[in-house]
Amino acid sequence: MSAHLRRHHPASVSGSRTAEQGRGGSLEPIPANIGREAGRHDRRSPETAKSDKKKRGDDTSDRLSCHKIQESLLSSASGYNNYRGILNWCVVMLVLSNARLFLENLLRYGVLVDPIQVISLFLNDPYSWPAACLVIVSNVFVLVALYTERQLSKSSFSELVGYLVHCINMATILTFPAAVVLLVPSVTPAGGAFVLGVYTILFLKLYSYKDVNMWCRELSTAKAKKLARSLSCPTSQQFNGGNRTVCYPGNLTIRDMFYFVFAPTLCYELNFPRSPKIRMSFLLRRLFEMLFFIQLLVGLTQQWMIPVIQSSMKPLEDMDLSRMFERLLRLAVPNHLLWLVFFYCFFHSSMNFTAELLRFGDRQFYKDWWNSETVTYFWQNWNIPVHKWCLRHFYKPLLRRGFSKIVSQSAVFFLSAFFHEYLVSVPLRMFRLWAFMGMMVQLPLAWFVGRFLRGNYGNAAVWISLIIGQPFAVLMYVHDYYVLHYRQEAD
Amino acid sequence: MSAHLRRHHPASVSGSRTAEQGRGGSLEPIPANIGREAGRHDRRSPETAKSDKKKRGDDTSDRLSCHKIQESLLSSASGYNNYRGILNWCVVMLVLSNARLFLENLLRYGVLVDPIQVISLFLNDPYSWPAACLVIVSNVFVLVALYTERQLSKSSFSELVGYLVHCINMATILTFPAAVVLLVPSVTPAGGAFVLGVYTILFLKLYSYKDVNMWCRELSTAKAKKLARSLSCPTSQQFNGGNRTVCYPGNLTIRDMFYFVFAPTLCYELNFPRSPKIRMSFLLRRLFEMLFFIQLLVGLTQQWMIPVIQSSMKPLEDMDLSRMFERLLRLAVPNHLLWLVFFYCFFHSSMNFTAELLRFGDRQFYKDWWNSETVTYFWQNWNIPVHKWCLRHFYKPLLRRGFSKIVSQSAVFFLSAFFHEYLVSVPLRMFRLWAFMGMMVQLPLAWFVGRFLRGNYGNAAVWISLIIGQPFAVLMYVHDYYVLHYRQEAD
Repeated sequence: MSAHLRRHHPASVSGSRTAEQGRGGSLEPIPANIGREAGRHDRRSPETAKSDKKKRGDDTSDRLSCHKIQESLLSSASGYNNYRGILNWCVVMLVLSNARLFLENLLRYGVLVDPIQVISLFLNDPYSWPAACLVIVSNVFVLVALYTERQLSKSSFSELVGYLVHCINMATILTFPAAVVLLVPSVTPAGGAFVLGVYTILFLKLYSYKDVNMWCRELSTAKAKKLARSLSCPTSQQFNGGNRTVCYPGNLTIRDMFYFVFAPTLCYELNFPRSPKIRMSFLLRRLFEMLFFIQLLVGLTQQWMIPVIQSSMKPLEDMDLSRMFERLLRLAVPNHLLWLVFFYCFFHSSMNFTAELLRFGDRQFYKDWWNSETVTYFWQNWNIPVHKWCLRHFYKPLLRRGFSKIVSQSAVFFLSAFFHEYLVSVPLRMFRLWAFMGMMVQLPLAWFVGRFLRGNYGNAAVWISLIIGQPFAVLMYVHDYYVLHYRQEAD
Repeated sequence: MSAHLRRHHPASVSGSRTAEQGRGGSLEPIPANIGREAGRHDRRSPETAKSDKKKRGDDTSDRLSCHKIQESLLSSASGYNNYRGILNWCVVMLVLSNARLFLENLLRYGVLVDPIQVISLFLNDPYSWPAACLVIVSNVFVLVALYTERQLSKSSFSELVGYLVHCINMATILTFPAAVVLLVPSVTPAGGAFVLGVYTILFLKLYSYKDVNMWCRELSTAKAKKLARSLSCPTSQQFNGGNRTVCYPGNLTIRDMFYFVFAPTLCYELNFPRSPKIRMSFLLRRLFEMLFFIQLLVGLTQQWMIPVIQSSMKPLEDMDLSRMFERLLRLAVPNHLLWLVFFYCFFHSSMNFTAELLRFGDRQFYKDWWNSETVTYFWQNWNIPVHKWCLRHFYKPLLRRGFSKIVSQSAVFFLSAFFHEYLVSVPLRMFRLWAFMGMMVQLPLAWFVGRFLRGNYGNAAVWISLIIGQPFAVLMYVHDYYVLHYRQEAD
């Protein structure tokens, strides 16, 4: 049967032999049974026999010559560029070196993680909770803003009066907690930073709230004048993800106001896009991530950051430059890891958690800043809520008032620098301008990177500025805080 | 003129306004001069005015709604997967952490690099150069092999006699230098390893030489019997890169023999592919790389490897497991870097240098082992000269003799393990089988990785085995050497 088939398909023999030779490269004579078969039937086409012989000959000459002209892969002439494995190498090397550092740290310091200690960061005196009280008080400012807008919508307040009330309200939002943090001694630095963060977010939210409601009034006066079709609320019965859309004065409710206060955005909008339903598995995964990463943040700080910072005080005092630089680099790794964990925990886990809970549809809390090739791209993409706010309520209004792009951009950086400094200096009760300068230095850095570095070099420069810049500022503040508090005590 | 144009191109006004709004998002009334112009001519088409108004309206509603339903980039639902920047992050982190380690090392140990010290590794007694003498003596074995082949080609030796002479010659190549290294006390470990490396390469080369010449004789007897066309030398006047091709007995010259001995390959061939000419710039670049990387190897060893190894002796003696593991990880990074530098220096720079000098055309000294997803792929691709030799002169002959693939593969690993052990144990004058076991462990490892890990996980596993496996063997040998030599002295 097999010989019969072979007669009809002369190629099949040589085909099967090729496969055999491919596997084993056999040079032995044709296996006995095939030879016998061939002899018995003797009808194998001469082509088959010839190709058989030729195969064997080719194999021998293959064996004799085993080199051919070619370039090495790493020579530029080879045109080879698949270095995918190098990425894995980098990951393996990073994991192993950090495992080593972790082990060394454990052997040197023992286990330093102590979750109870965290509480003491927020509480000096267990019977006085100034930070919590301040957060509760913040509701007053929210209600004042809502009340003002209601009066404005009913034209009980003139635009000027409303503007003044808003200004006073928002100035108080920034100054009142700062004054409390500076004057009440039971506020800890961590508690103070938390309170000021909450108030800053509130400030930005209420500023946006005021602006949007003003724009709505402007639009409705324009409408009233021209009887044009509604723009702020295209068709009043339109549905938006199952929710009725709201038109201008209808949005001034406590429910709408507090939805905005808790929503993970700084830009007010009358009809936020809503997701159709709360996905429980998504919600639980984000909650689990939050809990896990907060533990990790606390653990990394206690086990890794604090020993390194403590060991940096001596070189900083002595102004021993090479040791200072070594400590800076040593601090850079845990600081950067903390920042990355914080980024994921805050911008991905907790914001998505809140958004899912509130069925808030727009989950763009960050864009692909990790690929940024310029410093500007990084600042535009790592914190989308703030970037969106700056663009909508600060940069574009400045442009509309006729300022140039450069001036407006610098103003945004200046504002950002102010808030960075505000959030650090006030809780530490010490004004050193390191954070302010850190932000303002981004302007020449952005110019330099944008002007001289492209592609992967630009990206690497952004990473270096992130990895080195932050621990530098951290070291400066810690050093000054240490000198101010512990040296004075020692004297 | 501009108004005239505008009349013919109604879209141009709204077009320019769009651009303006795109830049500034202006909501102010139409600039005065345009308004005046429009009034004066009053021939603007009604569509233009309408689209103008619509634009302004769209801009306001854009400003009012600034959110849309979308997922976060890091949510799996977003389908986003561009993490190109992460590679740069890995590189920056690696450079920074190693810069830190380098600085720490310098601060702790000072500069330890001492090129003079290297000479003492090769020379115990400046008046006795046993290693150099052994290398010169190796020419005798080359000439014996050539003489035997000449006698065989003239049929002065029968195949059996020739085979026996070759066997004795090659057995001597392996045993004679080993005996000298073991018995002559002035041979240092480094000198011994170098000599044994040279003799091992020579052994592999002469084995290949013997095999190929035997195949040529087999072919010519087959030819003589069947009067078939020549296969070992297709057309005698054919040119090969400007060189005449050589036919069987014509290759048995001293010139051809020594070309093969110096060529960067272990597989003999009658007509090696030749490159057209020596590129001077390529040659000089490779030479510069060799000189630079050899300095780097020496520097890294003295500054980084030796202090770590010295500091590991104590934990190894005390059998302090966590400290031993920490030292192992600490050793892994410099050891791996050394191996990578050695790989580039030996397999790229020096082999390409030799090949360019000899106009040797086949520059495939390694393939893309950095992407290997299985251990087998790594061993098949990192050292192509040895792999080619094993395939051609060991694995395929075994298959032809009817052994199974698994057995043949294991035999190759066994042979490789033997040579690894030979090259380490004899120069150190101590038989511990760590290198042998290191190679034999590759077999179960290859099975495990091939069975359970795929893609990037397999690649990472190969990297880990490389990064961890080597320093483990190094530590074992150093520990045993230390115990054997310095403990005995102390006792």
